[in-house]
Amino acid sequence: MKKTVLAYSGGLDTTFCALHLTKDLGYEVHAVLINTGGFSKSELQEIEERANGLGVASFTALDVTKTYYQEVLKFLVFGNVLKNATYPLSVSAERILQAKTLAEYAKKIGAKSVAHGSTGAGNDQVRFDMIFQTIVPDIEIITPIRDLKLSREEEIAYLKKHGVSMNFEKAKYSINKGIWGTSVGGKETLTSNQTLPEEAWPTQVSKIGSEELVIGFDKGEINAVNGISYNNPVDAILKVQELAAPYGIGRDVHVGDTIIGIKGRVGFEAAAPLIIIKSHQLLEKHTLTKWQTFWKNQFSEFYGNHLHEGHYLDPVMRNMEAFLESTQEFVSGTVKVLLHPYRFQLVGIESSHDLMASKFGSYGEMNKGYTGEDVKGFTRILGNQTAIFHQVNNHEEN
Amino acid sequence: MKKTVLAYSGGLDTTFCALHLTKDLGYEVHAVLINTGGFSKSELQEIEERANGLGVASFTALDVTKTYYQEVLKFLVFGNVLKNATYPLSVSAERILQAKTLAEYAKKIGAKSVAHGSTGAGNDQVRFDMIFQTIVPDIEIITPIRDLKLSREEEIAYLKKHGVSMNFEKAKYSINKGIWGTSVGGKETLTSNQTLPEEAWPTQVSKIGSEELVIGFDKGEINAVNGISYNNPVDAILKVQELAAPYGIGRDVHVGDTIIGIKGRVGFEAAAPLIIIKSHQLLEKHTLTKWQTFWKNQFSEFYGNHLHEGHYLDPVMRNMEAFLESTQEFVSGTVKVLLHPYRFQLVGIESSHDLMASKFGSYGEMNKGYTGEDVKGFTRILGNQTAIFHQVNNHEEN
Amino acid sequence: MKKTVLAYSGGLDTTFCALHLTKDLGYEVHAVLINTGGFSKSELQEIEERANGLGVASFTALDVTKTYYQEVLKFLVFGNVLKNATYPLSVSAERILQAKTLAEYAKKIGAKSVAHGSTGAGNDQVRFDMIFQTIVPDIEIITPIRDLKLSREEEIAYLKKHGVSMNFEKAKYSINKGIWGTSVGGKETLTSNQTLPEEAWPTQVSKIGSEELVIGFDKGEINAVNGISYNNPVDAILKVQELAAPYGIGRDVHVGDTIIGIKGRVGFEAAAPLIIIKSHQLLEKHTLTKWQTFWKNQFSEFYGNHLHEGHYLDPVMRNMEAFLESTQEFVSGTVKVLLHPYRFQLVGIESSHDLMASKFGSYGEMNKGYTGEDVKGFTRILGNQTAIFHQVNNHEEN
Amino acid sequence: MKKTVLAYSGGLDTTFCALHLTKDLGYEVHAVLINTGGFSKSELQEIEERANGLGVASFTALDVTKTYYQEVLKFLVFGNVLKNATYPLSVSAERILQAKTLAEYAKKIGAKSVAHGSTGAGNDQVRFDMIFQTIVPDIEIITPIRDLKLSREEEIAYLKKHGVSMNFEKAKYSINKGIWGTSVGGKETLTSNQTLPEEAWPTQVSKIGSEELVIGFDKGEINAVNGISYNNPVDAILKVQELAAPYGIGRDVHVGDTIIGIKGRVGFEAAAPLIIIKSHQLLEKHTLTKWQTFWKNQFSEFYGNHLHEGHYLDPVMRNMEAFLESTQEFVSGTVKVLLHPYRFQLVGIESSHDLMASKFGSYGEMNKGYTGEDVKGFTRILGNQTAIFHQVNNHEEN
Repeated sequence: MKKTVLAYSGGLDTTFCALHLTKDLGYEVHAVLINTGGFSKSELQEIEERANGLGVASFTALDVTKTYYQEVLKFLVFGNVLKNATYPLSVSAERILQAKTLAEYAKKIGAKSVAHGSTGAGNDQVRFDMIFQTIVPDIEIITPIRDLKLSREEEIAYLKKHGVSMNFEKAKYSINKGIWGTSVGGKETLTSNQTLPEEAWPTQVSKIGSEELVIGFDKGEINAVNGISYNNPVDAILKVQELAAPYGIGRDVHVGDTIIGIKGRVGFEAAAPLIIIKSHQLLEKHTLTKWQTFWKNQFSEFYGNHLHEGHYLDPVMRNMEAFLESTQEFVSGTVKVLLHPYRFQLVGIESSHDLMASKFGSYGEMNKGYTGEDVKGFTRILGNQTAIFHQVNNHEEN
Repeated sequence: MKKTVLAYSGGLDTTFCALHLTKDLGYEVHAVLINTGGFSKSELQEIEERANGLGVASFTALDVTKTYYQEVLKFLVFGNVLKNATYPLSVSAERILQAKTLAEYAKKIGAKSVAHGSTGAGNDQVRFDMIFQTIVPDIEIITPIRDLKLSREEEIAYLKKHGVSMNFEKAKYSINKGIWGTSVGGKETLTSNQTLPEEAWPTQVSKIGSEELVIGFDKGEINAVNGISYNNPVDAILKVQELAAPYGIGRDVHVGDTIIGIKGRVGFEAAAPLIIIKSHQLLEKHTLTKWQTFWKNQFSEFYGNHLHEGHYLDPVMRNMEAFLESTQEFVSGTVKVLLHPYRFQLVGIESSHDLMASKFGSYGEMNKGYTGEDVKGFTRILGNQTAIFHQVNNHEEN
Repeated sequence: MKKTVLAYSGGLDTTFCALHLTKDLGYEVHAVLINTGGFSKSELQEIEERANGLGVASFTALDVTKTYYQEVLKFLVFGNVLKNATYPLSVSAERILQAKTLAEYAKKIGAKSVAHGSTGAGNDQVRFDMIFQTIVPDIEIITPIRDLKLSREEEIAYLKKHGVSMNFEKAKYSINKGIWGTSVGGKETLTSNQTLPEEAWPTQVSKIGSEELVIGFDKGEINAVNGISYNNPVDAILKVQELAAPYGIGRDVHVGDTIIGIKGRVGFEAAAPLIIIKSHQLLEKHTLTKWQTFWKNQFSEFYGNHLHEGHYLDPVMRNMEAFLESTQEFVSGTVKVLLHPYRFQLVGIESSHDLMASKFGSYGEMNKGYTGEDVKGFTRILGNQTAIFHQVNNHEEN
Repeated sequence: MKKTVLAYSGGLDTTFCALHLTKDLGYEVHAVLINTGGFSKSELQEIEERANGLGVASFTALDVTKTYYQEVLKFLVFGNVLKNATYPLSVSAERILQAKTLAEYAKKIGAKSVAHGSTGAGNDQVRFDMIFQTIVPDIEIITPIRDLKLSREEEIAYLKKHGVSMNFEKAKYSINKGIWGTSVGGKETLTSNQTLPEEAWPTQVSKIGSEELVIGFDKGEINAVNGISYNNPVDAILKVQELAAPYGIGRDVHVGDTIIGIKGRVGFEAAAPLIIIKSHQLLEKHTLTKWQTFWKNQFSEFYGNHLHEGHYLDPVMRNMEAFLESTQEFVSGTVKVLLHPYRFQLVGIESSHDLMASKFGSYGEMNKGYTGEDVKGFTRILGNQTAIFHQVNNHEEN
């Protein structure tokens, strides 16, 4: 019997795939749920039970959240990556790790194919296929939903016919939850001119007033929250999320270029990612030199886009990570943040690597280590070429 | 008698300069106040009276706000320029135009020198000198405050001795106001870990609740507010500021690299600049292609930094402006914004150039113009090189 | 009868297409040869005769060399574009214009399809398709060679069967000639370790000794050769080619990334493009500021790659052209070159915009406009941040 | 007695400094010659004797060529750094290491000052000062030539008066020799329109005909020449130089932006650097992915410029080195080169990491791993956004 490994999330599409691959195509289906921080224990149990009811050969839930942090999220923080200055790549980043884990699982159990439930309309199909064809180039990729072009109704009819009972009601908003944010799609995000209504957001606002939050960083990685140290950055991220999410912080709508060339729009809430990235960036403003900042920015946008588009395995990504990691040597210290309903405010930082140390002068107040005469000479030389340019070309400009 | 043109703002330093240049150095001082939108009529009148009391040969107030928009601000909007992802260059941008106007004024009246009141500790001295040495290379630059290294107290004693009466009390917060934002410096901004207190902000919060704001853009330039058309973008900017400032929107603290190499920190409030830039950027997300966005971002950071550092007359700035202007051809439409206390929210856009037009498919919902098979082929080719790379080098990685 | 427009070059593949479309598929075939400078009059006449013998409805030869220069080549010179620091994009650039011209021709005559003879193995298919689907999105693209996957032998058999007589012998080296260079492919270019033999080069070396060449530029465009002015840059390019090609100048082998992800290798000879680009670049070294040069280089590589990959119609290309054009304002003057067998040598330039004008000092000899003291101050400030960085972080480094 | 460390080369300027510091200023002068591969044993002996005759407290010659390679040259090869596409930074790179070594020597012997013989007209003064103020910020920098503004004749008169005998005749061409190239300045390089005459070049052409050279690389570093392995890359560089220099290879004239804003021009001969960099770059074309190449190029120009301008100690340089090093993982193999009088020709490469491996298809000949249908889908998606852009905006363009 032909073994296949199915990326299984428990939703309608992958439930259809599990049954179709088993019953119609005769596969020995190994359903694998790859958890990047978006599933609770009870949800996992429920999903497992349903999977077993579909006749799959095995069901496995793999929690890869720590690997996800080490191989992807860490670098998104180092690079302060927000796609289009907004979106922390909540979904795109986790797809990459899911595909990678699935490919390695297929290799391990000797499967000759992998299956995923992506449609033909989105980015995920590209991300999955890209990773598979690189890591397991000889393995067949099966995509029933994309190939059969079934409507939601047809999938439901098929499942009902085979006695599957699950909640078939379409949620008003489609939700994708992971440790780096929750995406929210709905009828508003299919337009260009409407935002999501209050009730669409998975986390409803339950905190009022303000609250102070202090985040510690060591070489660019979060290692403390409100004075408590965390060995595992994942736990620190979860703590920030727990404290900040009830304020409704980190909600926004992302508009951007999909891999397939059309524009796409999606809501997201990502309190911890936004707060951590902005805090990290503030700490960098105090600890990096001007050109470190400049080149990090030149790089990071591409790094984020390339990841978003499924190019995680292009070796240029490892090269950029080497660069990013190298910039973090002195990005250590604490950042104080104030949480308010719907927003947060960066108060300031403390760091023994702060280049704003007053012994070198205070901007606009005192100059130490240089004199006004030095600045005159500096300016004369700094502007020398532009002055020459204008003297040489002046007659033509007037 | 030697003519000199003094950049005059009516503050302590330039008042000292006016008197010192006239009385001690025997100059015929032509005091010029260059208004980039930060002075009211009554303030201007008061400043003029004081200037005349100091014995200057002439006082002239030049309103260059429209030129400022045309030569500088327009491009900051085209480029969505926020230094270090935060600061709209409120002060740096206006210094450039002030210096340029002053240099041209000196040329016009045949002065052989120009004077400014910058200290030896900040960025402004560099900006003024850079522009002067390029536009009027043969003219002497006089900088009494920088050269004499006087303390505030010494300046005051000198002015009192000469019978000048003005408010000598040091403001708790030093304020610099212009159309593109107001900067606020105080004891907190000299630290790394404190933010400005509520009372330090020039505009106190007086509006509550929410309010809708609709901004119109034509080829990247603001041309309407709430359905009212504006021939002059400056008036539209002022209207946005009038509506949004009372919400306390656009307050932040900027930390960055000064031209002289130390880190500097300054508070600012800039409701209109922030709202206009973010609205403009959203409209661009819908109307520009992926690589237009990428290259605009690569450019804009440098454009902002180079302007900030006084390199406005480097011809590369004109080249970048040609690029930026060219990208704006289809950046037309309206953006809806919700104003709330301390924050604003982008709702969405309407544009006949919106590339998210549903007839080309909706992201994640329908694919039009391509099939799932197309995507398979696309992905196979797109990932071809990375797949080859891993097959060629695989044995070394394991 | 269904009209189709065929990109016709007179070679084996397009001859097959002409016959196959007419005889087997019943199309009214309008064969169009788009000449970008690679065909002589006698070659064109021969090709026309053969086309007519195949039963096409019409044959048209369009000389687009001037348009090619205005829309493409001009910018390749402005950008000093050499792919991978080597290849002047001889073939890729002309495909773009051929596709564009063909699409517009199809529109004009109301054809509902276009046909080209590209195989499924190369870059040209992508370039043609990309341009067609943008300019004539509703038109069908017919690619018989790609679809039928015919071998050379099968094509020949088919043509012989239909009584077509032409030279069926396979040339040892496949040649593609245009005004911006001639590409040469052969068995050596299919390897990584062999270069082309002497006899493979289309232009054999017939000049010995040395010869001086003086090229004039006006705003970045070639406008004179050896003191003779040219109104049409195309004629100037041809003149440089005529003088330099017999020296065997501009031969090289390009290795690079094809659009489909594999590496490709091709020989080329391009005397005029190489000499013109290198001369232009030298003139720029004397007339542009440091940051103009820097940003031109950052841009140009992408511009060349994007063109190479068929993205000519992405609006970012127009934006980059606006930038490039803007940088050329003062790139005027003459460049002296020495031609030798197999190589050329840049002697120097003369320009009224030369920023090396001695009145501003001679490097290493005299400083004018600044003093040693100025340089001390300059250096103190320029290195201030790095010095602070090391003082702050020193204890950690040791 | 005050200790000072003098950067001593044995030339007129530093001979003057040694005597002046000792005799007139009463310093205990420790003369240090820092050899980066440009001095022979006999030259060193002669220089030492002269130094001792000047009454210096000590003379030390430090051969730092290996460190120079490890800390600087290696990265110039990784980055294929040629300033302005021409100059291998022969002089600028070695100044950095000389300054660094000197600063560390001063620290070691507890000197409170360092001295160098730079004039006030060139780049070297900035490079020396920048490095000194960072590594030994509290140490005084003494620059007699810059400060006294002496003419050559005055220096000679002073030395003669003190009984110093050396060859005072001014060489027609000033030469600076190091392992990474020899610079040549003369009256022609002070113009824009003349090149150096044959006799000006330090290495006269003595080889005719052609010669094959095979260079081996391991992770981007040269490790073999003509089949002979070298443990020390410096020896391999010297071997390439020995073989290629007699052909007159690697001669050119560099024009570029000096640190002080004027344009400078200098001749150089650098056979080994040019051959090694171009060979390395060819090997990279076969072993790196498209985006690795792109980003290496974006980085490398800045890396070279920043080094050239003395910013070696800016931490961004270490970050860029981490990136560059990471890209070299698979840049291993051999490159075959043909040497001819005045030029060299790259023949090809062999590498087990060659991405042009024929099993993935041959460009333009066979497609493996993908079909013509795949390419159609690829192109449809790849061009999707541009096609949409033109459909949306078409009515405005016409």
